[in-house]
Amino acid sequence: MQKPSIPKGTRDFNPVEMARRSYIFETIKSVFQLYGYQQIETPAMEQLNTLLGKYGDEGDKLLFKIVNSGDFLGKAHLDDLKNQDSAKVISQISEKGLRYDLTVPFARFVVQHQNEISFPFKRYQIQPVWRADRPQKGRYREFYQCDADVIGSKSLLNEYELLCMIEDVFQRLGIKITSRINNRKVLFGIAEVAGIPDQFMDITIAIDKLDKIGPEAVLEELKNQGLPQNALDVIRKVIERTGVAVAEQLEFLNNLLTNSETGLLGVSELQEVYNYALSQNKPNLFEIDLSLARGLNYYTGCIIEVSANDVKMGSICGGGRYDDLTGIFGLKDVSGVGISFGADRIYDVLNELKLFPESAEQQTKALILNFGEQEAIHGLEMLTKLRQAGVAAELFPDPAKLKKQMNYANKRNIPFVIFVGASEIEAKLYQLKNMTSGEQQNLDISGIIEAIKKYER
Amino acid sequence: MQKPSIPKGTRDFNPVEMARRSYIFETIKSVFQLYGYQQIETPAMEQLNTLLGKYGDEGDKLLFKIVNSGDFLGKAHLDDLKNQDSAKVISQISEKGLRYDLTVPFARFVVQHQNEISFPFKRYQIQPVWRADRPQKGRYREFYQCDADVIGSKSLLNEYELLCMIEDVFQRLGIKITSRINNRKVLFGIAEVAGIPDQFMDITIAIDKLDKIGPEAVLEELKNQGLPQNALDVIRKVIERTGVAVAEQLEFLNNLLTNSETGLLGVSELQEVYNYALSQNKPNLFEIDLSLARGLNYYTGCIIEVSANDVKMGSICGGGRYDDLTGIFGLKDVSGVGISFGADRIYDVLNELKLFPESAEQQTKALILNFGEQEAIHGLEMLTKLRQAGVAAELFPDPAKLKKQMNYANKRNIPFVIFVGASEIEAKLYQLKNMTSGEQQNLDISGIIEAIKKYER
Repeated sequence: MQKPSIPKGTRDFNPVEMARRSYIFETIKSVFQLYGYQQIETPAMEQLNTLLGKYGDEGDKLLFKIVNSGDFLGKAHLDDLKNQDSAKVISQISEKGLRYDLTVPFARFVVQHQNEISFPFKRYQIQPVWRADRPQKGRYREFYQCDADVIGSKSLLNEYELLCMIEDVFQRLGIKITSRINNRKVLFGIAEVAGIPDQFMDITIAIDKLDKIGPEAVLEELKNQGLPQNALDVIRKVIERTGVAVAEQLEFLNNLLTNSETGLLGVSELQEVYNYALSQNKPNLFEIDLSLARGLNYYTGCIIEVSANDVKMGSICGGGRYDDLTGIFGLKDVSGVGISFGADRIYDVLNELKLFPESAEQQTKALILNFGEQEAIHGLEMLTKLRQAGVAAELFPDPAKLKKQMNYANKRNIPFVIFVGASEIEAKLYQLKNMTSGEQQNLDISGIIEAIKKYER
Repeated sequence: MQKPSIPKGTRDFNPVEMARRSYIFETIKSVFQLYGYQQIETPAMEQLNTLLGKYGDEGDKLLFKIVNSGDFLGKAHLDDLKNQDSAKVISQISEKGLRYDLTVPFARFVVQHQNEISFPFKRYQIQPVWRADRPQKGRYREFYQCDADVIGSKSLLNEYELLCMIEDVFQRLGIKITSRINNRKVLFGIAEVAGIPDQFMDITIAIDKLDKIGPEAVLEELKNQGLPQNALDVIRKVIERTGVAVAEQLEFLNNLLTNSETGLLGVSELQEVYNYALSQNKPNLFEIDLSLARGLNYYTGCIIEVSANDVKMGSICGGGRYDDLTGIFGLKDVSGVGISFGADRIYDVLNELKLFPESAEQQTKALILNFGEQEAIHGLEMLTKLRQAGVAAELFPDPAKLKKQMNYANKRNIPFVIFVGASEIEAKLYQLKNMTSGEQQNLDISGIIEAIKKYER
């Protein structure tokens, strides 16, 4: 019999990994809820016509497609089958695909349910997505996204609030971060004053690679695309301005973009978000990073990216404003802004910095040892009392050897074991053993509950 | 442009539905954890060879299969393509399928990770599953399962504990239930003393239909299968014993099954679980229902089914013991027992009995009205204080008309709105309006927090 396995690029999560992941998701969720975001879920499968054409040609290829049920070849064209023309046949045998991100399903949701939604609609969504990408370190074919968006409000208070949410989430997780923001209108303004407004998207795409390939290679790439030297000079000046205070960046941009109406609008947006931060005594809520571009082409205003200060890991959260996401499904002029937390990278940061709290891994707090049927019945009583007091507890189900039971407690990282043997039952005093310190105490049941609760705090 | 839609049999969950569903899942999860069960997750996609042959021929057809990436037809046989032979081609173009339940992936997980697991392994899993079933009322192509299993322990303390967990979950949800149990060994014993041991599975399958078609039709079906009259008499006597006290059922079975070793073993298992219940003063933890069979063929010991007392809804939770689930993946002799909660039916029961707590739907507790930029900045300060106090709160992001903002609060079911206008800011006293009673109070910020917290309790 073959050893069972799972598809490449997918993962099983064991109890310790799940407890840690839950800690991340629950932290993010509690902040989302505190800020008034409401959860939705959409189906794993979407109609292929909802997904196709939304992620570029490359994205279309990365969609997992589901074979139609029943006699699926009956509807396929015989000629295409004979030619083994996969590209043509696929649309004849498949109508559904697995979701590729949470953004397109969200746009579809908003359009489909527009009459039931009260706008502005603040929604969050935490679900897996699937991509038939080549698996590699840190890149999976199934992974969770954690998105929060406000749709139906142009107010920059939303951008400010999202930045506060980011601050709040990472503060709770104990991760020191830097939030960097920029504005697509500013980037357009830069292209405009550099005299190459038509090449705005090329510039954006090139600048987006800065982190990976460095400024010289970016400029080289743009030079090869035919950008004139004076344009390259402007871009160099811009992307080399890192580590500059927000007020200085704003002043610089106001001077640079005097002749770009769109550019100045972008600067005023950045200024407004900064004013909100200053009004609340948060001058360090974010930096303005002119080398921030973000790859996705639906962004139209502020863009946001977050990195951890103490670990080299790339972006752990990002987002931005889009003015026409729902337009693809026929609902025009609905502006939105959103962010997405990268759960897998946040997991790696917490792991590397050893920031997972012990409580995220210790779920069962006490194991009652099983010394036989009569003792077990007494153990059941104690178990009920522990659980009624809110203490997660177990009774070892079999009267196995002591060593086996202790091993189980150790491997499961259970902090206390309780001996309920004949003499303990007689005396109504039970031995409570702290598995870390080795300390042992003889206590009655309420003393045991108290000791465990004290430890939990 | 076509109106966007989702695949038939799948669902979007809006914020109210999600809040209610979370209430169910969180309740179940908190009980699972209190009892020491640990969460795992497995990928949505499994290798088709993990799934095929595990759910019968009908089940194989109901698996959603994923088309291989790239030039998938390249590996298909030209002859089969020409013949449009879907049954043959499917295995040539698809290697992965969506999980059909949580049980087979769990068995696969246990075998694959057997060296990392500390047995007995108490795991829970809450994830969606997919079936290409014909959609109908209450039957979906994507739905969540909520499973808890203990694997690697033969102790009947596990059965007792699962029954306590069921009691605990439904007590927390406020649903009055009846748990009914039976034992596959008892059913085998009945087949044995009826002189038809070889037809044990036929009897099980027929009895499983009792709820749907009634006793006469069940007996008719068995008669048509060639069962002799004396066997039918035994079965009638057994399935007609409903509403009988546990002790009486046990006595009846001990007499009936005197000549069946397996049958008596089953009775002693039921007796042992009952003894645990009696020892903990829970004589009504369950009933013994001899007409309970359960369809799945991997059960070998106790079987469990739960129904709500006040709503006609069918089973809302069920499970049982299996002695060889992991055998299909090469790990022999590992006994387990588990239960599965039916989240969709539990949702319908809570809905019908109006048992969802208001708190499950009211997430944001206060909306601060937006009267303009300066007022909004003051509103932000208040917002921070509310959130720091743990009150989920929002500031309306745009200075929209009062009516629009109030409508938003109403539609979102937000219990309080706070007026932060120029005069309020001046006086440092803000109007707090209770949206249900209409009552208005002028309070300072700490008074507001106090009033909302009081309401929350």
